[in-house]
Amino acid sequence: MFGRFRFLDEENNTEIDFDGEVFDGIVYPAPEYQNVDDEYALASLLVLPPVSPSKIICVGLNYSDHARELNMPVPENPILFLKPPTAVLPHNGCISYPAVSRQVDYEAELAVVIEKDGHNIDLEDAYSYIAGFSCFNDVTARDLQKADGQWTRAKSFDTFAPLGPFIVTPEELEQQGLNPENLNIQTRITDADGNVRICQNSNTSEFIFKIPELISFISSVMTLKKGDVIATGTPPGVGQLIPGDLVDVEIEGIGTLSNAVIDEI
Amino acid sequence: MFGRFRFLDEENNTEIDFDGEVFDGIVYPAPEYQNVDDEYALASLLVLPPVSPSKIICVGLNYSDHARELNMPVPENPILFLKPPTAVLPHNGCISYPAVSRQVDYEAELAVVIEKDGHNIDLEDAYSYIAGFSCFNDVTARDLQKADGQWTRAKSFDTFAPLGPFIVTPEELEQQGLNPENLNIQTRITDADGNVRICQNSNTSEFIFKIPELISFISSVMTLKKGDVIATGTPPGVGQLIPGDLVDVEIEGIGTLSNAVIDEI
Repeated sequence: MFGRFRFLDEENNTEIDFDGEVFDGIVYPAPEYQNVDDEYALASLLVLPPVSPSKIICVGLNYSDHARELNMPVPENPILFLKPPTAVLPHNGCISYPAVSRQVDYEAELAVVIEKDGHNIDLEDAYSYIAGFSCFNDVTARDLQKADGQWTRAKSFDTFAPLGPFIVTPEELEQQGLNPENLNIQTRITDADGNVRICQNSNTSEFIFKIPELISFISSVMTLKKGDVIATGTPPGVGQLIPGDLVDVEIEGIGTLSNAVIDEI
Repeated sequence: MFGRFRFLDEENNTEIDFDGEVFDGIVYPAPEYQNVDDEYALASLLVLPPVSPSKIICVGLNYSDHARELNMPVPENPILFLKPPTAVLPHNGCISYPAVSRQVDYEAELAVVIEKDGHNIDLEDAYSYIAGFSCFNDVTARDLQKADGQWTRAKSFDTFAPLGPFIVTPEELEQQGLNPENLNIQTRITDADGNVRICQNSNTSEFIFKIPELISFISSVMTLKKGDVIATGTPPGVGQLIPGDLVDVEIEGIGTLSNAVIDEI
């Protein structure tokens, strides 16, 4: 499990960013960061987004249980849209609720992080292009999505792409006896009064388009670059956030991505 | 007028990329490139995309003459969509016609290049965020656009964002007595038999949303980064390209962006 972190050097009052491995609540900086200590308590660090994608490619309706819920036919091919890199938010970062919207929704998704550049990737080679998996929240201003028809504005606000906390490699998943196409995925909201409710609760086995199909299809259109993120669609149970909520996206074997919702500053 | 160029050092068989100013067919490398000569004939260089945008934000219907042609009401706000950085193609690069499409269209547009990072930019400050202007072709697989509903796939193929050849600064436009909101914009196609036809012929004075409005509106959603590109919409007369065509986007005072169309390799 690896991620990106910020350490505040209080003596020199400088911020130092570094990549590191996470194990049992301890962060071990990668060897190239010689200006930091050998290890840190995870709790003492600010968690940054684990990658800086050059693009985030998202997929519309991709859970068969969601298609049944919406009474919609299964699409013939994945419907793609992009979120800009400026929307990325780390674990524990705050989702800013835009004053222009009256309905901001969560959408829990499994994120696939790309390992190396590729174009026209064959189905059978697709897994070799995966650096790892993370949690993603495709935050969406539903009212603006409906008003515009095109989904870009509604999904592109700064902070609308929470990603993290870390990246779990395919090998680490396998060591846990897990398969990325069979992971429980859940959204929980804790409201301002401390009440917790489970909002989305599904499994990636419901994928309509499997991960290799997505990688192959997307790369037949646009070259995938190292660090790019594919968000694989959301299960049923999408609903609203309000300022004061804390939203958790938990994926089995991957982790829990937590973000508070605040009024636009 | 400035751009980015590649010089092939034939002695050492290495490629050297550099930024430079263009004047009267001569390229003067920027002072920080000390590994190249003081000047080059433009014709001896490969022209690269003048910037590497972290995102390309495009605007739907934005010419009032186009709205009249389509008999469509003027939209209340700009409809936004994104093209990925991997779609960027330089002047003289070849547009690859995807085998999966049966209708690939040109869309001539004025590109606005962003000078510095900004969020929630005021209308009156917007001009200070402009590095300059260039020509853009929002190449679109029209059949896929209709099939998907969302426009992303249809507009995101590699080579579908020709940009260039150079960037003309606001000051340079002014020195020519020109205003970016009053520039002739034209698309010409030269077919494989050498026949030339004018396909789009309008003026940026037809903009529904003026440049400051676009900058202010887009930056109220997503932070604009230095080098980002806003494509300001296309005038009437959109139509098809076929392999063998050469498509020119000419904008008064800005230049001519030329790209040949070839079958997908």
